[in-house]
Amino acid sequence: MNVAIIGASGYTGLELIKILLTHPKFNIVYIANSTGEENVQELHPCLDGVTNIEVSKANAKDVSKVASLAFLALPHKTSMSFAKELLDLGIKVVDLSADYRLELETYEKHYCEHEDKDHIEESVYGLPEYFKEDIKKSNLVANPGCYPTASLLALLPFIDYIQEGTPIFIDAKSGVSGAGKKLSELTHFVNLNENCLAYNPFNHRHMPEIEEKIRVLKDKKFQINFVPHLIPVSRGMLVSVFATLKDEVDVEKILENRYLDNEFVRIRKTPVDVKSVAGTNYCDIFVARNGKALFINSSIDNLLRGASSQAVVNANIMCGFEEYEGIPKIAYVP
Amino acid sequence: MNVAIIGASGYTGLELIKILLTHPKFNIVYIANSTGEENVQELHPCLDGVTNIEVSKANAKDVSKVASLAFLALPHKTSMSFAKELLDLGIKVVDLSADYRLELETYEKHYCEHEDKDHIEESVYGLPEYFKEDIKKSNLVANPGCYPTASLLALLPFIDYIQEGTPIFIDAKSGVSGAGKKLSELTHFVNLNENCLAYNPFNHRHMPEIEEKIRVLKDKKFQINFVPHLIPVSRGMLVSVFATLKDEVDVEKILENRYLDNEFVRIRKTPVDVKSVAGTNYCDIFVARNGKALFINSSIDNLLRGASSQAVVNANIMCGFEEYEGIPKIAYVP
Amino acid sequence: MNVAIIGASGYTGLELIKILLTHPKFNIVYIANSTGEENVQELHPCLDGVTNIEVSKANAKDVSKVASLAFLALPHKTSMSFAKELLDLGIKVVDLSADYRLELETYEKHYCEHEDKDHIEESVYGLPEYFKEDIKKSNLVANPGCYPTASLLALLPFIDYIQEGTPIFIDAKSGVSGAGKKLSELTHFVNLNENCLAYNPFNHRHMPEIEEKIRVLKDKKFQINFVPHLIPVSRGMLVSVFATLKDEVDVEKILENRYLDNEFVRIRKTPVDVKSVAGTNYCDIFVARNGKALFINSSIDNLLRGASSQAVVNANIMCGFEEYEGIPKIAYVP
Amino acid sequence: MNVAIIGASGYTGLELIKILLTHPKFNIVYIANSTGEENVQELHPCLDGVTNIEVSKANAKDVSKVASLAFLALPHKTSMSFAKELLDLGIKVVDLSADYRLELETYEKHYCEHEDKDHIEESVYGLPEYFKEDIKKSNLVANPGCYPTASLLALLPFIDYIQEGTPIFIDAKSGVSGAGKKLSELTHFVNLNENCLAYNPFNHRHMPEIEEKIRVLKDKKFQINFVPHLIPVSRGMLVSVFATLKDEVDVEKILENRYLDNEFVRIRKTPVDVKSVAGTNYCDIFVARNGKALFINSSIDNLLRGASSQAVVNANIMCGFEEYEGIPKIAYVP
Repeated sequence: MNVAIIGASGYTGLELIKILLTHPKFNIVYIANSTGEENVQELHPCLDGVTNIEVSKANAKDVSKVASLAFLALPHKTSMSFAKELLDLGIKVVDLSADYRLELETYEKHYCEHEDKDHIEESVYGLPEYFKEDIKKSNLVANPGCYPTASLLALLPFIDYIQEGTPIFIDAKSGVSGAGKKLSELTHFVNLNENCLAYNPFNHRHMPEIEEKIRVLKDKKFQINFVPHLIPVSRGMLVSVFATLKDEVDVEKILENRYLDNEFVRIRKTPVDVKSVAGTNYCDIFVARNGKALFINSSIDNLLRGASSQAVVNANIMCGFEEYEGIPKIAYVP
Repeated sequence: MNVAIIGASGYTGLELIKILLTHPKFNIVYIANSTGEENVQELHPCLDGVTNIEVSKANAKDVSKVASLAFLALPHKTSMSFAKELLDLGIKVVDLSADYRLELETYEKHYCEHEDKDHIEESVYGLPEYFKEDIKKSNLVANPGCYPTASLLALLPFIDYIQEGTPIFIDAKSGVSGAGKKLSELTHFVNLNENCLAYNPFNHRHMPEIEEKIRVLKDKKFQINFVPHLIPVSRGMLVSVFATLKDEVDVEKILENRYLDNEFVRIRKTPVDVKSVAGTNYCDIFVARNGKALFINSSIDNLLRGASSQAVVNANIMCGFEEYEGIPKIAYVP
Repeated sequence: MNVAIIGASGYTGLELIKILLTHPKFNIVYIANSTGEENVQELHPCLDGVTNIEVSKANAKDVSKVASLAFLALPHKTSMSFAKELLDLGIKVVDLSADYRLELETYEKHYCEHEDKDHIEESVYGLPEYFKEDIKKSNLVANPGCYPTASLLALLPFIDYIQEGTPIFIDAKSGVSGAGKKLSELTHFVNLNENCLAYNPFNHRHMPEIEEKIRVLKDKKFQINFVPHLIPVSRGMLVSVFATLKDEVDVEKILENRYLDNEFVRIRKTPVDVKSVAGTNYCDIFVARNGKALFINSSIDNLLRGASSQAVVNANIMCGFEEYEGIPKIAYVP
Repeated sequence: MNVAIIGASGYTGLELIKILLTHPKFNIVYIANSTGEENVQELHPCLDGVTNIEVSKANAKDVSKVASLAFLALPHKTSMSFAKELLDLGIKVVDLSADYRLELETYEKHYCEHEDKDHIEESVYGLPEYFKEDIKKSNLVANPGCYPTASLLALLPFIDYIQEGTPIFIDAKSGVSGAGKKLSELTHFVNLNENCLAYNPFNHRHMPEIEEKIRVLKDKKFQINFVPHLIPVSRGMLVSVFATLKDEVDVEKILENRYLDNEFVRIRKTPVDVKSVAGTNYCDIFVARNGKALFINSSIDNLLRGASSQAVVNANIMCGFEEYEGIPKIAYVP
């Protein structure tokens, strides 16, 4: 099946290229960024010798002539205008931006006015462990944010056991690639090396995303108190969720039972680490309890499970392939 | 005033030497480790050209002949036998180990049988912002652990405002020097670089230390749920405290008022970072509120405010000097 | 074709497993280490969910029953006793240790007495760009050291142009995984983080390996002055070669012409970096000239091109497969 | 003595502030940058609580009213216009830029037209171990570049023993702070972390600086072939010099004899490392020989011995104080 990648310049665009180059079912026929002025080796010198595919200036009509599915690795707002056009041309879309992740009202409160109100309602949230049946039937999948992916996979199995009315705290630690390629004070090597700090505490756009999905899936309203941190690591994310249980339940069993049939979630007997998942689509989860205090600990590769490999899993499901086809499972360790 | 350092081989011993070499009031006259076989440059090559002081095999009687105060940078259990002997010889002691930090019962539950029951009761917990008056009169100060220092300085101002019966969660991130010089799988460069992980969740010896001090100071019993993490950083510590308030109070004001007169606590308007305190005795604190959900965020240098510089502040107070005499305030930044 | 990996516990053993799991022609049927007591997930937690292959206690006869080729990722000396037995049982061997890399005399001078003098003479040095025809016909390939691989690929095209009698200097920088999994002062995170240092200057066992191969291939005797350094990086190696040319020749052209047909050597127009090759079998090379002063700059992944992926390339050639079959070309970037 | 710092925003400006705040003889009375719009805590948050000194918009006349000596931590070209004005007003100047380091002809070839031809001839090169007597009498000291400092201190003792006509190679590795605070692709955390690369090989402006000083001091013309590298470290620099000796001389003795009386050069018996000097004004040097092949290995803190602390040493000498007054000797280790 022929596919397109729009937004080839950034980190998630690169990861999409890397996965799809060796995918047994998908065939990259179109790569684009906003200018189309550089070749793929200039965008990503590591691809020299690996692929020579031409980089176009992004154009929906051109995509529709050659591909049946498009991955959009674009900034929010830019993404919805492309998605709209592609969907109208009959192309399946996996959108890695935030544009179709939220309900209209939530989106407009935290982002901007939505320009594709028609499609936002038919979009499916691309967390395969929870929305697989909907994804199968969908032409528009909104790939979750990296923090929500790791947080929801950790938290959802326990929502029914958490005492209502108590706050849930999420302390998340992300590698710097999560901040993208853009230059900023914060991503200057000297500022982040030998450093660690929180940013946007209680004020990150992934917070309403987590709250909304819990409400949608579990019909329960919890206040999510989310504090992201930056750690001096290039890729990978560690999430620590803290909550209060109703009863002193067997938390390991709850976790194991929930993910028995999900090969991309691994239950660990010891606290999870970033390095065992970097380079893969795995989400590793560990859980511990202290009386009614609950600690759930998950780790993902922010660029893969938190973006590009999860996008390809979604595409696999949308196209009737096996979930695991062409999905990276072998970590970069050591 | 002549002072001794016993336990010169480790990181905290080195930091004590570094601080005391330029201290205007204290004069190092005795340095010892368990063997006395290497000179100070062999122990710490960075001290070549800086000092030639002889390294002795630790002996309490020798200390008592030359010094009036001793810093013990020894492992727990080893420390109490030295402290006992020194105190009996009339030497003031600042103990950096855990041996005199806790009440007898708590200590014996979490460490081992105590061998100096006489002195444990007269020891003072060396957190200067909360125990200054007691430290002034004491001959035995138990220097707090690194995690408790950062956690208590963050948490104590808010204890009266936190809803009783709700759990308090502490997500702490420590640089690797906190694990000491000992070789281990966990401290191998390849295992920790590009990595981040929790260890001993809900099961670290600093957890009862924090609980006990809250009870002692505030006469309140809170369940502290403490999860330490390792980050790929040599020195520095970031602590994120999460709790539930009774009311939607003005948390910035509470924090500012509490530390108005404490020059080694800096209240920050934005989330704190490790790099601004590494190399200093400062504890930086930031606070944020989301309804009744509370986030307190503190950072310290784990080897200085979390050990050696706080020990020298305590010695300053014990000896009637100004708290800030010879205490590092200038960070290693950049 | 069924293959065995002996020495599965270390970094190069892990990399062999990772490559061979997705290799289109080789099939891992036997994995062993010295004890056979742990399962593969205990040795390498990142392989949980990826493979369940049993780990045996290494035994040559068992190998011969199931496999036609064995990779030996063992310490030198241990390796030759296994190799000998396997070769006598008719099994092809790719040896990643130093045991068959050198001529007998050189080996015994720099390592120890050789215990398999019969086979050392028939072994072929596994640098595919220079020994491909011999590798095709060989049953015993000695995989080059990581430093010699990067140094020889950089240096050999220029040997005929370098002024005889002048010294050649090699300043090599290696990631810490090159030092292996063993715990040591040098690999403690705190000692290497924010640090950089040379070790064994003019005194590393890879120095005679480089000298010998230049002599063997080019019939010229140059004094190689080799200084390895450690940099605070997990994987990757950068080599800077300095030499004196006879004439002011066109060095870019010489380099390009030599590697025209070698897809795993990439000629770069700007200085090479470690990150563009980490995760791949590529050797990137850049060259510059200042009058007669020559600078050749190469980078490899020390665990892949410097060990495991080059071993699989050699196995491909020995078995008549295409050189590039199953060999990683996609870097870990970012 | 009252001093001014002009150029307070950058890393070297910050280091000057940090050193001078505790200097026993110098008193900072004036700090300026190009705008004067931020206070010192906004420029450098780590100085909160440490100093409240006002930041002015740089103005030479204002300086002359309050200070007798000024440190210029400005970009080249900007620096010479300030220096000129200050010198004409009778203020002593230590210039950390390149503007007065070179002879006029060399400067104009590698930088730009010089706008202060009067003073360039009377400036003294501020490498104290070689120009102390001239510095004593000078009103204008040009502080050496970081690479030339480490390279010349390593190389100069051996110049008389190096075979004339042979090339000298310098492979230098610098921490990222050497590239300054400016944002660039190269200093993005993700690009440099887990990476290492050369830049401007044979083409860096510090190359003619090294060549000229050897010529000036030793009356010998050597071709210096200089290749700088970036390593993923915030501060510190390691220099590896390679050269060809005339004879197999006792290189340790030559080195020791040369620096017998220089307390800020430490001769090491094992290869030097970055961490033992970071935070200090030390230059550590190690030397090794392989026949006539020479390896000299030096390390410095690029921001201190390579800039700000060396500047203060020069100011000490210019003002008749002891060289070591207020100069940092205690490393940041661990």
